Amino acid sequence: MVHCEPIGTVVRPATTPAELPRQGHEGELRGRIEIRAEFRDGLAGYRDDRVVIVWFAHLADRSVTAVDRGPGVFASRSQDRPNPLCLTTCDVIAVTETGLEVVGLDAVDGTPVLDLKPPLRHEGS
Amino acid sequence: MVHCEPIGTVVRPATTPAELPRQGHEGELRGRIEIRAEFRDGLAGYRDDRVVIVWFAHLADRSVTAVDRGPGVFASRSQDRPNPLCLTTCDVIAVTETGLEVVGLDAVDGTPVLDLKPPLRHEGS
Repeated sequence: MVHCEPIGTVVRPATTPAELPRQGHEGELRGRIEIRAEFRDGLAGYRDDRVVIVWFAHLADRSVTAVDRGPGVFASRSQDRPNPLCLTTCDVIAVTETGLEVVGLDAVDGTPVLDLKPPLRHEGS
Repeated sequence: MVHCEPIGTVVRPATTPAELPRQGHEGELRGRIEIRAEFRDGLAGYRDDRVVIVWFAHLADRSVTAVDRGPGVFASRSQDRPNPLCLTTCDVIAVTETGLEVVGLDAVDGTPVLDLKPPLRHEGS
């Protein structure tokens, strides 16, 4: 078993998936990653205009492996999977003292954030 | 705190980072992802020729946040970070009954694998 301590949290108005702006309105998917005080040193020198956010879909159904008549969960990007570790590459609007302002994040308010990384070129654009 | 049960393990000859083929010899970074029996349903219908592997760098130093005179860990791709969740996009050589044969994976033998996903187009190539 692997244990991860969240480094931060998603802060935004939407608290349920239904409240998130729909795809196609990505410009509205603005949110903030609030980093916990003890991890803020890790953001020093962040200069990339994109960021890969590794977040934990805490509302996911983790009991799912195969989908009825469909592909297995590892052939899908569904949040319902044994380890709901989600990856989103976002535009960075600002690096603040307490975290990041981003656009393009499809996670609700209160979602635990586990890691942040600059994209590799082939992941980024 | 977030808990993840590994869905599988990396199987390959190299057991320490120093034994991995160097970058630039990526064609040699061939390995196998052995999926645990209870999660194999999740691979059903895997057809993409690339895969994003989410793996846990179990040898990493998790106490690191800032790097002396350098950027913080969230501005780097170093495995030494609070939650050493690593992302590698690999070529899929074969989908077998017990897992995946891949090329391009920079993880040692015995590394826990937490998730597999088809790449999004902007992550993939």
